[in-house]
Amino acid sequence: MTVDRSKLRKRFEDIRSLTELLCAPLAIEDHVVQPIEDVSPPKWHLAHTTWFFEKVILEKFEKNYTPYDPTYHFLFNSYYQSFGERWQRQERGVLSRPTVSEVLAFRAAINERMMRLLDTCSESDLAEVARLATIGLNHEQQHQELLVTDIKYIFANNPLMPVYRSEVDRDTRPPKKAEMKQISGGVMCVGYEGDAFAWDNEKPVHRVYIDDFLISDSLVTCGEYMEFMRDGGYTNFRHWLADGWDHVQTEGWRAPLYWTDRNGKWQMMTLLGLRDIDPNEPVAHISYFEADAFAHWAGKRLPSEAEWEVAARSLNTGLEHANLLDDKFFHPMPNKDSFLGNVWVWTSSSYSPYPGFIPEAGELAEYNGKFMSGQMILRGGSCATPRDHIRLTYRNFFQPEKRWQFSGIRLADNLHK
Amino acid sequence: MTVDRSKLRKRFEDIRSLTELLCAPLAIEDHVVQPIEDVSPPKWHLAHTTWFFEKVILEKFEKNYTPYDPTYHFLFNSYYQSFGERWQRQERGVLSRPTVSEVLAFRAAINERMMRLLDTCSESDLAEVARLATIGLNHEQQHQELLVTDIKYIFANNPLMPVYRSEVDRDTRPPKKAEMKQISGGVMCVGYEGDAFAWDNEKPVHRVYIDDFLISDSLVTCGEYMEFMRDGGYTNFRHWLADGWDHVQTEGWRAPLYWTDRNGKWQMMTLLGLRDIDPNEPVAHISYFEADAFAHWAGKRLPSEAEWEVAARSLNTGLEHANLLDDKFFHPMPNKDSFLGNVWVWTSSSYSPYPGFIPEAGELAEYNGKFMSGQMILRGGSCATPRDHIRLTYRNFFQPEKRWQFSGIRLADNLHK
Amino acid sequence: MTVDRSKLRKRFEDIRSLTELLCAPLAIEDHVVQPIEDVSPPKWHLAHTTWFFEKVILEKFEKNYTPYDPTYHFLFNSYYQSFGERWQRQERGVLSRPTVSEVLAFRAAINERMMRLLDTCSESDLAEVARLATIGLNHEQQHQELLVTDIKYIFANNPLMPVYRSEVDRDTRPPKKAEMKQISGGVMCVGYEGDAFAWDNEKPVHRVYIDDFLISDSLVTCGEYMEFMRDGGYTNFRHWLADGWDHVQTEGWRAPLYWTDRNGKWQMMTLLGLRDIDPNEPVAHISYFEADAFAHWAGKRLPSEAEWEVAARSLNTGLEHANLLDDKFFHPMPNKDSFLGNVWVWTSSSYSPYPGFIPEAGELAEYNGKFMSGQMILRGGSCATPRDHIRLTYRNFFQPEKRWQFSGIRLADNLHK
Amino acid sequence: MTVDRSKLRKRFEDIRSLTELLCAPLAIEDHVVQPIEDVSPPKWHLAHTTWFFEKVILEKFEKNYTPYDPTYHFLFNSYYQSFGERWQRQERGVLSRPTVSEVLAFRAAINERMMRLLDTCSESDLAEVARLATIGLNHEQQHQELLVTDIKYIFANNPLMPVYRSEVDRDTRPPKKAEMKQISGGVMCVGYEGDAFAWDNEKPVHRVYIDDFLISDSLVTCGEYMEFMRDGGYTNFRHWLADGWDHVQTEGWRAPLYWTDRNGKWQMMTLLGLRDIDPNEPVAHISYFEADAFAHWAGKRLPSEAEWEVAARSLNTGLEHANLLDDKFFHPMPNKDSFLGNVWVWTSSSYSPYPGFIPEAGELAEYNGKFMSGQMILRGGSCATPRDHIRLTYRNFFQPEKRWQFSGIRLADNLHK
Repeated sequence: MTVDRSKLRKRFEDIRSLTELLCAPLAIEDHVVQPIEDVSPPKWHLAHTTWFFEKVILEKFEKNYTPYDPTYHFLFNSYYQSFGERWQRQERGVLSRPTVSEVLAFRAAINERMMRLLDTCSESDLAEVARLATIGLNHEQQHQELLVTDIKYIFANNPLMPVYRSEVDRDTRPPKKAEMKQISGGVMCVGYEGDAFAWDNEKPVHRVYIDDFLISDSLVTCGEYMEFMRDGGYTNFRHWLADGWDHVQTEGWRAPLYWTDRNGKWQMMTLLGLRDIDPNEPVAHISYFEADAFAHWAGKRLPSEAEWEVAARSLNTGLEHANLLDDKFFHPMPNKDSFLGNVWVWTSSSYSPYPGFIPEAGELAEYNGKFMSGQMILRGGSCATPRDHIRLTYRNFFQPEKRWQFSGIRLADNLHK
Repeated sequence: MTVDRSKLRKRFEDIRSLTELLCAPLAIEDHVVQPIEDVSPPKWHLAHTTWFFEKVILEKFEKNYTPYDPTYHFLFNSYYQSFGERWQRQERGVLSRPTVSEVLAFRAAINERMMRLLDTCSESDLAEVARLATIGLNHEQQHQELLVTDIKYIFANNPLMPVYRSEVDRDTRPPKKAEMKQISGGVMCVGYEGDAFAWDNEKPVHRVYIDDFLISDSLVTCGEYMEFMRDGGYTNFRHWLADGWDHVQTEGWRAPLYWTDRNGKWQMMTLLGLRDIDPNEPVAHISYFEADAFAHWAGKRLPSEAEWEVAARSLNTGLEHANLLDDKFFHPMPNKDSFLGNVWVWTSSSYSPYPGFIPEAGELAEYNGKFMSGQMILRGGSCATPRDHIRLTYRNFFQPEKRWQFSGIRLADNLHK
Repeated sequence: MTVDRSKLRKRFEDIRSLTELLCAPLAIEDHVVQPIEDVSPPKWHLAHTTWFFEKVILEKFEKNYTPYDPTYHFLFNSYYQSFGERWQRQERGVLSRPTVSEVLAFRAAINERMMRLLDTCSESDLAEVARLATIGLNHEQQHQELLVTDIKYIFANNPLMPVYRSEVDRDTRPPKKAEMKQISGGVMCVGYEGDAFAWDNEKPVHRVYIDDFLISDSLVTCGEYMEFMRDGGYTNFRHWLADGWDHVQTEGWRAPLYWTDRNGKWQMMTLLGLRDIDPNEPVAHISYFEADAFAHWAGKRLPSEAEWEVAARSLNTGLEHANLLDDKFFHPMPNKDSFLGNVWVWTSSSYSPYPGFIPEAGELAEYNGKFMSGQMILRGGSCATPRDHIRLTYRNFFQPEKRWQFSGIRLADNLHK
Repeated sequence: MTVDRSKLRKRFEDIRSLTELLCAPLAIEDHVVQPIEDVSPPKWHLAHTTWFFEKVILEKFEKNYTPYDPTYHFLFNSYYQSFGERWQRQERGVLSRPTVSEVLAFRAAINERMMRLLDTCSESDLAEVARLATIGLNHEQQHQELLVTDIKYIFANNPLMPVYRSEVDRDTRPPKKAEMKQISGGVMCVGYEGDAFAWDNEKPVHRVYIDDFLISDSLVTCGEYMEFMRDGGYTNFRHWLADGWDHVQTEGWRAPLYWTDRNGKWQMMTLLGLRDIDPNEPVAHISYFEADAFAHWAGKRLPSEAEWEVAARSLNTGLEHANLLDDKFFHPMPNKDSFLGNVWVWTSSSYSPYPGFIPEAGELAEYNGKFMSGQMILRGGSCATPRDHIRLTYRNFFQPEKRWQFSGIRLADNLHK
């Protein structure tokens, strides 16, 4: 496949500059802190995504390469054993240096060197440079989503309750009633097949047998979730997996993350500030354990990732109706019930390799494969996912207790019980 | 189905007395300790299996039931929220009372009351009593296996290296060379179907699509595992899942559990005492992470549980050739390569409900379903599993880092790579 | 000083056999468990005190010495770096072997070898053997007290509430009213001076300046302590040291250890079983933090160790009125207000070396000196201290949060405020 | 005593502005982070010292007082239970807001309101306002020292090794040889007596008996400390308190904090950057445990706080020769052997109330008294202590394992051994 240098340059510029735009509303101080291990300081995201291009591409393809700052290789390697020693992840928030402006200078310098390389590298290098640059850009888009969710945590965790952007017009029409749609099973094909970019973990396309099943055409709303809460959802162990119940006890979970009980009334912290719960919007910031308990309470279940993918292929209403990062709502919205966007939905599938999985070559073999243990698959993207990043075959994954992502619920059920 | 009271009585007597026989070689002190949370004191096993019959059956069906000792209901409930408060699991080893002889008296009393109930309960109660008694007996058999593995840990953890029983004659013939056998895939049926006892988690029988695949007719041996060790298996992160590599670092894993390096020579602690490694016997006491790393190093992979079950149906050589608890070897043996016995094999499948899974009714709904998170499936039984307890559809499950069970490896591979 | 061999033998026999007598009421199982790190299994005490004689004396002085069991040197060394590696303290309760009877055989064998050595060692060795044997016997007496308090913890921690011995006649007369006695200060001598045995930490006698002060002739009673509790003692931070208040919060302290609120009525677990609080008996099982908070609430203070020693010299009514181990009450008693016995009293003095302190020679330098950090001094002995072990100069010491010893309060005050 | 309003205003302005000057070399990012619980973010120091004036003075004395921002009372209360709930100390580094400029605005506003109050408060309020303002200013000076040591930790902990200020001229003359000076003992007066400001914990003056003793006229140098290291100081348990030895093992101590072994050569991180060890300068950043171990190795001991105070009264060469904060070296210097300045010296005395101690009235009772447990006394001030803040009676105190303060050693000894 021939590479279009100017299209790739354009895409590089667009994605790289969006990352900085996402940080524009922040104070310098907001770039520095790490309230929990999961949440990285925004300036770390700015630097790490840049390190990726330097380490994975420039170091190999740039003529007379010299490192921008050798210490940055230590500071901004995330988890690649192949790339040597790293600063400990849980200590990212104790580093005041490099400063934000030093990190932005690092970005500018690497951007310039990358642009020059894209212009000038030999034709023989170009295919590989383009392949790696595409990975680097998709990597950066993943960090754009993390940036949004990490900023939300940093703000929501602060008693001063800073606001990321001002409130937007919301669709106040009542959402249409959720319906369980029947999907035909059989031996189905699952996974990515095609020539465009997809992660190694989406491949190869492979056969899966599934029974006919039911799946909701709507995400579970805050209003529905509050019924679960009112019905003692958080106090009745019968709905919960044992590990989930342990978390309820030890973490004191009584509601989704960011919900707060103000004198008997539930409110939620959003990137647009603290406000009342909108019962019509999809519930977000719940763990797999909560999603599973809700489904149990509702007499239904979560879909497997194969079921979700098969259903999405026939029911998805298209990216144009989805609430994604580009829409700049930074929050799940009512009446946006595409299978894509709004919130990632927890599936009942644990993260494991597809039959015939082949990890990315070289150091990037560490990108996905080594994390295939102890995590659950989420599907569909969220209001923090870039539109040109998401696909029906996209596999996201987190430990079942994580709540800081825009994660929610789409119910499924057996056809015959 | 009509219940044969005398056959059930006989089975009750046999299984209950075997539990006590397994403890016969122990000193009183050996019954008391709990070196790690996973390992329960033998007297706790003796009491808990008895509590099960009292709580689940006698309390409901015995005329004029009075508790043997109300405090025992608190002390010997393992994890049933439905049965109320419990003594904390990790504190089982701090209870010197009830003494071993008090626990044996408890067993004798409940045995007598159970036998009387089996004789005298009304025909209308009998079916339910028999159903629950059968669960109680299978439950007790699971604890027989745990007793053996817990005793092994208690002994191996003691610098005085006590011996459970004396060494037995071993088959010293070199094992036949392992062969990868081809198994045909397609839409296959997996799970238990029939009228005999099986756990809720083995049902319902359901369809799974699998590709044609290869699976070894032999378990991985200690000799093969030592090649992995000599080749730097424990020091090369490339073979490991990230969570597994973390365990290697923090736990200092360099070999299977119970292996010990004496002046450069590996030995192992067994229930028959400390001795040299026999390269011909199946490797045991490894975690899922180690099994997965070994398979990666070997250029192969672990089977899924569906693959294992399908393969076992055609390749299994029968219970009579298997090394099981009844054979009293208390250790994996060479040349016993049935798909059953010797060591449980880790599969690549995480523990989740089969499509259409219906938990056991009532309080026993907690028996299996709530643990379907964070664990991996093992198949096939071990040298510590009773012969009339194991089945090809049997699903065992442990967290991927656990090593104190007789757990090992059977390799699989794709037909076309 | 010449050594009387037969007197020393007699004392050796008496003390060694008392240790075993203290264990006589125990079941074998009671010897094995370690519910918290502070509490050692009784069989460990039996073995460790024996190891002390073998390691410190026999190994050096016995002709043709061979170790009883070399592994015991590893298992029963408590904290002596000089004596090499040790089994970890917090893991003492996971060792089922050696069994109790093996430990008693070890005791018998070492007793016999010690007796023979005391008979047969050369005159030139005798002084040193006698010196070390005397240390060994005082060491064993310390472990007799620990045995009693550890057994109490083991029993009180068990919901079956075992009883060590049956209840005794108690003095039910109301205690005389406590009086604050005035003691004259000045430059006073503190510490041990004389030829009999005393620990290195009691020496040398040295001068201390103290002001005139007041000290109570009575221990604080349970009734007085309940007034503190009723007055919100455990909920008002103003009475507490910051570290103490942290413990109140994190440990949930609401009363002394072993007190339990049964339907609004306080009861206490004793070695004689569970019973109502006797308001007339001295309060016990409180931490330094609680003693200090009580004194603050009462408008008084704790005595320094120098004040206590000076006061005890003039107010002590003699060992014959004290409630000590030999009296076999195993519990503090009313109307026993000698400065000795009943409960150790917390002083306001931290544990530090006396001016001119010289540690014991050789390996026994580790006996006391290295612990002079982070601990508070207690004085006076308790109902678990042997009568011929306690002295007015005796310094006991524990971390300020410890509560499982028989520890209580004697109030002091400034003369002029 | 009449209060001079203009002098007090002047002092207020001077001290408040010095705090900000100390932060002038920092990047905004440097104000935010908290690498360990002990180290507070510089912007927290800026805010907390301001909160103190608002909460302790303005809230009580300002007409029509309204809080600057009520949430600040929650965020910037350090440990005062009397002042209500607080943000958790270990979470100070996760708050990006208020920003540095918001904190500086807070400072400016409270400064203005304080200045107005000092001008306009009634004569009847003035004495109390002045008393509290003086406490507030001394409190701020304590935080100036903490600012310097916290900034040092923040910088030294960063692999980029930022520099606080550039290196200064150092005195390179070899220091004079240390001499042990004899001090006469007896009943001595210790503690503060006078009309100027002193903390409650320095009072009342009281009598202490001490023997004649020896004390060094010099601080222990880095060169001397390296001899201890070379002689196996960190590997020989015999020099160490048991708690100290535990720290050596678990923390891996091999040298003072901030020392780093670069290819076999020791260097140290300073506020002036990384450089070679100067053997002539006083050793700093050692724990009490290390100070005590060094003294043991040297065959000497640490002075008690009474000994230090008595010796300092006769040997101190005056504030003008001392290296203090005002000298802006930000590092211990050779040939500055006053008893004041350079490094605080660990004494052998634990932190406890002087006989007759009366805590500050009101909420400030919490300032010192509640911390009198588990800490050791340090004396003399350091290169980070303001000159008009230190006194011979000044008592500093830290837990014995702390190393991030400028803490060092002055040896003492008994006259007759």
